[in-house]
Amino acid sequence: MGSPVYVINPNSSQTVTAEIDKAVAPLRSTDGPEIVCLSLAEGPPGIQSQRDVDGVVTPILRKAADLEESAGAFVIACFSDPGLHALREQSRHRVLGIAECGVLTALTFGQRFGVIAILPTSIPRHLRYFGAMGVMDRFAADLPIGLSVAELSDEDRTLARMADVGQTLRDVHGADVLVMGCAGMARYRAALQDAVGIPVVEPTQAAVGMAVSHVRLSQALAS
Amino acid sequence: MGSPVYVINPNSSQTVTAEIDKAVAPLRSTDGPEIVCLSLAEGPPGIQSQRDVDGVVTPILRKAADLEESAGAFVIACFSDPGLHALREQSRHRVLGIAECGVLTALTFGQRFGVIAILPTSIPRHLRYFGAMGVMDRFAADLPIGLSVAELSDEDRTLARMADVGQTLRDVHGADVLVMGCAGMARYRAALQDAVGIPVVEPTQAAVGMAVSHVRLSQALAS
Amino acid sequence: MGSPVYVINPNSSQTVTAEIDKAVAPLRSTDGPEIVCLSLAEGPPGIQSQRDVDGVVTPILRKAADLEESAGAFVIACFSDPGLHALREQSRHRVLGIAECGVLTALTFGQRFGVIAILPTSIPRHLRYFGAMGVMDRFAADLPIGLSVAELSDEDRTLARMADVGQTLRDVHGADVLVMGCAGMARYRAALQDAVGIPVVEPTQAAVGMAVSHVRLSQALAS
Amino acid sequence: MGSPVYVINPNSSQTVTAEIDKAVAPLRSTDGPEIVCLSLAEGPPGIQSQRDVDGVVTPILRKAADLEESAGAFVIACFSDPGLHALREQSRHRVLGIAECGVLTALTFGQRFGVIAILPTSIPRHLRYFGAMGVMDRFAADLPIGLSVAELSDEDRTLARMADVGQTLRDVHGADVLVMGCAGMARYRAALQDAVGIPVVEPTQAAVGMAVSHVRLSQALAS
Amino acid sequence: MGSPVYVINPNSSQTVTAEIDKAVAPLRSTDGPEIVCLSLAEGPPGIQSQRDVDGVVTPILRKAADLEESAGAFVIACFSDPGLHALREQSRHRVLGIAECGVLTALTFGQRFGVIAILPTSIPRHLRYFGAMGVMDRFAADLPIGLSVAELSDEDRTLARMADVGQTLRDVHGADVLVMGCAGMARYRAALQDAVGIPVVEPTQAAVGMAVSHVRLSQALAS
Amino acid sequence: MGSPVYVINPNSSQTVTAEIDKAVAPLRSTDGPEIVCLSLAEGPPGIQSQRDVDGVVTPILRKAADLEESAGAFVIACFSDPGLHALREQSRHRVLGIAECGVLTALTFGQRFGVIAILPTSIPRHLRYFGAMGVMDRFAADLPIGLSVAELSDEDRTLARMADVGQTLRDVHGADVLVMGCAGMARYRAALQDAVGIPVVEPTQAAVGMAVSHVRLSQALAS
Repeated sequence: MGSPVYVINPNSSQTVTAEIDKAVAPLRSTDGPEIVCLSLAEGPPGIQSQRDVDGVVTPILRKAADLEESAGAFVIACFSDPGLHALREQSRHRVLGIAECGVLTALTFGQRFGVIAILPTSIPRHLRYFGAMGVMDRFAADLPIGLSVAELSDEDRTLARMADVGQTLRDVHGADVLVMGCAGMARYRAALQDAVGIPVVEPTQAAVGMAVSHVRLSQALAS
Repeated sequence: MGSPVYVINPNSSQTVTAEIDKAVAPLRSTDGPEIVCLSLAEGPPGIQSQRDVDGVVTPILRKAADLEESAGAFVIACFSDPGLHALREQSRHRVLGIAECGVLTALTFGQRFGVIAILPTSIPRHLRYFGAMGVMDRFAADLPIGLSVAELSDEDRTLARMADVGQTLRDVHGADVLVMGCAGMARYRAALQDAVGIPVVEPTQAAVGMAVSHVRLSQALAS
Repeated sequence: MGSPVYVINPNSSQTVTAEIDKAVAPLRSTDGPEIVCLSLAEGPPGIQSQRDVDGVVTPILRKAADLEESAGAFVIACFSDPGLHALREQSRHRVLGIAECGVLTALTFGQRFGVIAILPTSIPRHLRYFGAMGVMDRFAADLPIGLSVAELSDEDRTLARMADVGQTLRDVHGADVLVMGCAGMARYRAALQDAVGIPVVEPTQAAVGMAVSHVRLSQALAS
Repeated sequence: MGSPVYVINPNSSQTVTAEIDKAVAPLRSTDGPEIVCLSLAEGPPGIQSQRDVDGVVTPILRKAADLEESAGAFVIACFSDPGLHALREQSRHRVLGIAECGVLTALTFGQRFGVIAILPTSIPRHLRYFGAMGVMDRFAADLPIGLSVAELSDEDRTLARMADVGQTLRDVHGADVLVMGCAGMARYRAALQDAVGIPVVEPTQAAVGMAVSHVRLSQALAS
Repeated sequence: MGSPVYVINPNSSQTVTAEIDKAVAPLRSTDGPEIVCLSLAEGPPGIQSQRDVDGVVTPILRKAADLEESAGAFVIACFSDPGLHALREQSRHRVLGIAECGVLTALTFGQRFGVIAILPTSIPRHLRYFGAMGVMDRFAADLPIGLSVAELSDEDRTLARMADVGQTLRDVHGADVLVMGCAGMARYRAALQDAVGIPVVEPTQAAVGMAVSHVRLSQALAS
Repeated sequence: MGSPVYVINPNSSQTVTAEIDKAVAPLRSTDGPEIVCLSLAEGPPGIQSQRDVDGVVTPILRKAADLEESAGAFVIACFSDPGLHALREQSRHRVLGIAECGVLTALTFGQRFGVIAILPTSIPRHLRYFGAMGVMDRFAADLPIGLSVAELSDEDRTLARMADVGQTLRDVHGADVLVMGCAGMARYRAALQDAVGIPVVEPTQAAVGMAVSHVRLSQALAS
């Protein structure tokens, strides 16, 4: 089936990569492209700042260059889409980012999207990106769950905070669809959607689905 | 694999439905949802006016109601997305429109999208829709190829006009990605892309790809 | 005086039509066009969903076709402006919708308009429409009064809820003008305006006023 | 019928006032408010610069104060809407500007409005105003006819230039409705519309029509 | 160094002018342009309404005409930027307004700017201006401190209200930078910034800094 | 005067740095902050791609960290503003980018800004940035001069191309102010402005002027 979709988690966390791998598993088919999820050994443990975002671009490009020959598509699996446009320049393959695909997919589920961020400091960065995407007229709000890394390991507490924030996005800011503003949170998607009663988009699934479709269409064209 | 993606061509043209069927064939997989393309017997021969758009909603809803029990997702395969929101109300399944998905997918290929329309009278309707989508800051222009139905049967001439219009969108209006503003034109996509040198999105493929991914993810969740 | 303004209430409620008739009565003049308010027998009792909106287009067009020869202008008297653009295609006369005219008129009364909806499910539909109109930079919020049909018959309670919602639109969302997001609510306009202290636009009056002016100007041109 | 609509032409040209008077004549009715068109003796011969716009506000306010007691509504009949918001503060009556009403009315005729200006130097001023109105997503372009005052007295030449500019707005900039960006040009409206084949809005008629309707509705409420 | 920057406070308050003079003092250099702060004797004691804004344009233009020959640049030191564009027409020098420069400078400090107004009635006027500037996608909110003129003389109370409003702008409306919506409040800037923990822009400093730079660059070019 | 403004040219070209140094020389004062222009030894010879932009962030941050203790402010002197937000996170000083300041300054000179780029491939990157800035309603167009690096050394030819492009921006796209979309082109500013007859903003001067003002104000506060 050749030409895998390479999903690059730009941080070094194997746990996050494993979570992504599990989230996108249903998008694998017996006759479709492989979906290969990778961590970036040189990446930071987590991408939390603009410095982290900009700093992982070079290792992403290097990793992708190594994979270019075999690749069918690339997905950058961090909600800041680090290196998205640089990799589009470098690669002859389709390159997708999870923030871009997550937000665009949300636009097909509701009229106003809300975003659940981990850290408050990520929000201005997200806003700059949504502005660059030109979708501010569809934007409800972006709110942080405000838990420390240690607290995030408590799953019940994390889900409860996500549900709280989701309800605020829905009731105060008028969101009718939510986007999880982070990779590696797929395990909460269904429960969060149940808790808030509006669709919740897991952005890695959104991007990988689009990548798989693209590889299938390209291969058909080439064959 | 149950739960097919039903692609409803809201006009009565079997030729267009066959063209769509061929365009989305690569998105079929041995272990994924079926993709079933249907014409709407009650639909007009082509959807050319707002009257046509509004007029096919009731038959679309009726057809979709008949298919609801078995369906995994619906795709409305007309660039005016007739009945999109009404069907979202009616169905418990994912419902996608080709204009919405085509334009959103284009936003991942370039910064300013141009649209190639068949008829000049469709353009204000498209603009209202892009406004409702909130993507006017990414919009380059929407231009008609200006051929009569009879002339459209001349494939060389049609492609030549599409390429002319595509070059104008690129050079005069600054488009760096094009969307084909009509279902049933997939046969021209690759040649048009070669002619203009920027990506060309075939909207039915964009929508069906997203629908297939959604069905796969939903079935995994349910199983 | 010939050439009446036909005000088509696309639901079948004679009560609503009577309310509209009373609301626009001051716009009648002895030497101006008649204003004829009609119910649509084939319409639903109320227009509450996108399905209802799309479903009444065909009967609206049929009714308007019957009236075309004598008409001076048409007003579609439902806040979702069903069939507005289809009727503009069909008729050689001026065609106005109450949502469009109500919102545009509000823009001459204040800098940020708030909308009072009946049902929460209408709000995404309104937002799509305001986006298509390109007026989201002037939009404060759209909030539902959240009463059932039965409760709406209690006028005091309805007015009290409208005033509550209007105050929230003014104080929390910064609205300095309100639009009543429904036909047939004209009886509350003055009391609501008194209660909230900012202008309240009754959209049927806004549209019919513009239609009357247009007929007068056209007739002068023709004579 | 008391409570006239006072239409204040803020320049001192009796010719322009006479032209306005003729343009709005069809909006007079035997049982409706008077429509009284006035020149501003202290105004400049024409309003051509921002200085002129700002400079006529004080005389407009003074004139309107003199008329306040008898007035039903005010219309400021200059396409820069000088003093619009200051008069809204000062008066307890409805105050409308022809640029605001002309543009908003155009939004009910087409999806993208073009403006025909007299002077190129007025265009940035118009753009600031359209931005303040929040309607830039509906804006096609604003182009000057580029004739001197002397040349404007040649009606055939003026109409020919307007038609040229109108065709450019339609064909190059995608306008499907035009607004005459000046008071006192009503005599060209019908001929221009015939020449370009898309609707042309005369802004004084748009504003006076809305003012008349408002007075009628207010009087009914008061009686 | 010739060619002073004239900072015109369009109200007649010497206290405000003195406050401005003190605020911009650090922008004076031994070898740079003088910075001369002036009151407008004909101006009102304070600029509180649109009438005040429009009414001071003529005296501003007259004052600036007197200073034209010696001037290097003009700054209009009122947050409504009265006469900004009229003076740009009249003068061959650089003309800056404090609202324009204050807001634009805020855009370099944060992603969403909040404005602290004195009077609630100024807010629609500010919104029209931000719309004309085309920056509504960056706008958080504009809130009044709601103190009377008498209460403003109580500095502690004024600062406390500013801090309250600033916290609301930050926490409820998502502002990450604030602009003081009034000249003559520079004394509160540093304390307010400490109280709210996000940058606070004093608009007179923003405008005068840009004017000084311009004069330096122009003189270098001329020499 | 301590606390210099460090202007970091993120490419390794000493020629460009020397050009910047000369451009900002008039902003130096005897009693103001030093202005120190630096090349980045690790930078590429020129910043031409998104890869170059992202790739210089780490060396910019490292260089700025070395300078942090003595710095008063930083200016990043490349029209893609590489590392702007990462450096804002890292430094306690004011950090300005020339694209941001150049465009914002242009908004005080005209209503619609045009940008003169060197390379066509930079334009989508610029558009993303203007979208993130939220200024697309003020944007006219961004056009490349289309010369190779070798051709750029021919100054007459470069100026002639800039003037051609500037005239197109003015006449076809309605720009009334231009921004030079590149550092190190200051020598052409005055001649280009003369050639096109509308203001031309040199972005390095815009940013350094704002930085100098900020340092002066901060030092006054601290002293």
